[in-house]
Amino acid sequence: MFDISSLDSTNRQSIQQFIDNKTKPLGALGELEALAVKLAMITGPKKIHLQQPVMLVFAGDHGIAEEGISIAPSTVTAQMVQNFLSGGAAINCFCQSSQMQLEIIDAGILQPISHPELTVQSLGRGTKNFIHEPAMSLQSVQKGISLGAEIIYRHVSQGSNVFGFGEMGIGNTSAAAALMSAITQLPVEECVGRGTGISDVVYTKKLQLIQSALLKHHNRLTDIKSILATLGGFEIVQTVGAMLAAAECQSIILVDGFISSTAALVACEIVPAAKDYMIFCHQSNESGHQKLLSFMQVKPLLKLELRLGEGTGAALAYPLLKAAQAFYNDMASFESAGVQSV
Amino acid sequence: MFDISSLDSTNRQSIQQFIDNKTKPLGALGELEALAVKLAMITGPKKIHLQQPVMLVFAGDHGIAEEGISIAPSTVTAQMVQNFLSGGAAINCFCQSSQMQLEIIDAGILQPISHPELTVQSLGRGTKNFIHEPAMSLQSVQKGISLGAEIIYRHVSQGSNVFGFGEMGIGNTSAAAALMSAITQLPVEECVGRGTGISDVVYTKKLQLIQSALLKHHNRLTDIKSILATLGGFEIVQTVGAMLAAAECQSIILVDGFISSTAALVACEIVPAAKDYMIFCHQSNESGHQKLLSFMQVKPLLKLELRLGEGTGAALAYPLLKAAQAFYNDMASFESAGVQSV
Repeated sequence: MFDISSLDSTNRQSIQQFIDNKTKPLGALGELEALAVKLAMITGPKKIHLQQPVMLVFAGDHGIAEEGISIAPSTVTAQMVQNFLSGGAAINCFCQSSQMQLEIIDAGILQPISHPELTVQSLGRGTKNFIHEPAMSLQSVQKGISLGAEIIYRHVSQGSNVFGFGEMGIGNTSAAAALMSAITQLPVEECVGRGTGISDVVYTKKLQLIQSALLKHHNRLTDIKSILATLGGFEIVQTVGAMLAAAECQSIILVDGFISSTAALVACEIVPAAKDYMIFCHQSNESGHQKLLSFMQVKPLLKLELRLGEGTGAALAYPLLKAAQAFYNDMASFESAGVQSV
Repeated sequence: MFDISSLDSTNRQSIQQFIDNKTKPLGALGELEALAVKLAMITGPKKIHLQQPVMLVFAGDHGIAEEGISIAPSTVTAQMVQNFLSGGAAINCFCQSSQMQLEIIDAGILQPISHPELTVQSLGRGTKNFIHEPAMSLQSVQKGISLGAEIIYRHVSQGSNVFGFGEMGIGNTSAAAALMSAITQLPVEECVGRGTGISDVVYTKKLQLIQSALLKHHNRLTDIKSILATLGGFEIVQTVGAMLAAAECQSIILVDGFISSTAALVACEIVPAAKDYMIFCHQSNESGHQKLLSFMQVKPLLKLELRLGEGTGAALAYPLLKAAQAFYNDMASFESAGVQSV
């Protein structure tokens, strides 16, 4: 479905040599050098080109929220979408600060919102409660992946090649934890966290519910799309499609926190080469997130103890990409600067 | 000499309340909230004002470089200053990317450079080799502190209130390690690192030389200014003066890597309240740096394995201050956004 090319590793050595000849000791720019290598492999190799970055925030509601295992009720999803559209949320502020365009997508929230700047491609008014039945049909998974991809194709045709992936959806840490456990085979207790801040009692309930759901649906969890249908969320499914399309278009994928990383995990299960285009931006305080990043063998750029989602970690990390672009494209070589090589 | 006010902690609670009422769960912006509190306490409290940020890179040469315990000879200091002035170094690229003004100061390099954009306030052509004799006189310390301060007063009078502190000087990790050990009383081996990348043999020599210098000068290391005269560098002394002046002017001090942090340590020894204005930007790979940050009980914003100095970590962290400013000033409250408080 998605024709994703692995990055051409024959460029890697010449890109590193180009960096090594810049006026600094070998490796002295640490992780920013690894970042520049990746960006040059995707958009270069001669220059890094970061063009018209867009933050996509997919919103969806979750049937499991009716179990009361989140910090807030499902009504808050639509309220926060309204807040995004009014410019008042954290992600609005960070996109402005990082000079990224922001697009909000209703992938399936409970209460529809009419707003000229909202992209509506709803898969339904919230998923079903996966404690009792599959969250959605396989048809919804397929449709959601296509709809997510279409957003990318539109932006790519307008010149963008950097995409941040944020989300909003009360209950979605439960869906993400269940997906993570089903895919990685890690024990549920290593995947379930406290979301944006639940109590011990609610945490225990959340853990038990997800454990029993994984047992109940055991026979359905056979392939990645069935797993996604059984445990996923509408915003997660559309994010997966958008990430795969971004990789297909050789664009840069900025992965945010726990939900966004779970979508990245799913995307890599579908097409492993998608990982070549992913930059992991932030390690959140959500307890499963660190284990997920370890499982995927990736190291995020920032660790600021955020636990908000929305794409906030990705927007905060974007200036580091611009810095990597600046030094890769503009820094002098030892020869051109007349500096003795060290 | 410097009249530095501690921050008014009576504001802290109302600033945190203002943040707590924004549309996000309590504490969900993690370290960015602590950063915003500090910035609001310095420049607020109603709004955070970051104005005309300036990166100051102080350059100086070190007598101890003649011992051959650095990765490069002293001639590279002037070559790199020339590179800064030509716009080709990492710090040029990062200042451009972070939209910071850059000023380069000759605080005492070996080979004078004539360039219209170089601020020349040299304390001499490199310090003396502190293995044999004190690096400089007490008069030089006093003069250097004043000269560093004057740069800040000039920029503050022109409207700036954010200063990054970078440095360039072959041999200056040796001076910084010696200063750190003399001030903190930590064993030399915990303070001495590999600079920008020396071998095991050179590392052992560096360690032994600094240990013997600390023993030799033991009777001189009685007060902070004598310690600075005995072991310091011209660029370090001017940085100390500039940091103290910035604190006096209630400006924000962006501390960079190991050398910059050592200057911050010295400044806080002279006037402890200066620490209120400091933001530690990056934990470098220099082994003593982590121990120094622990000693000062501070946690840096970034950890990107840089080991370059020049102010690079501070320039890379500055966008996080702008993000903190954006959310503090512009993010909606639960009430204004119509979002149910969580």
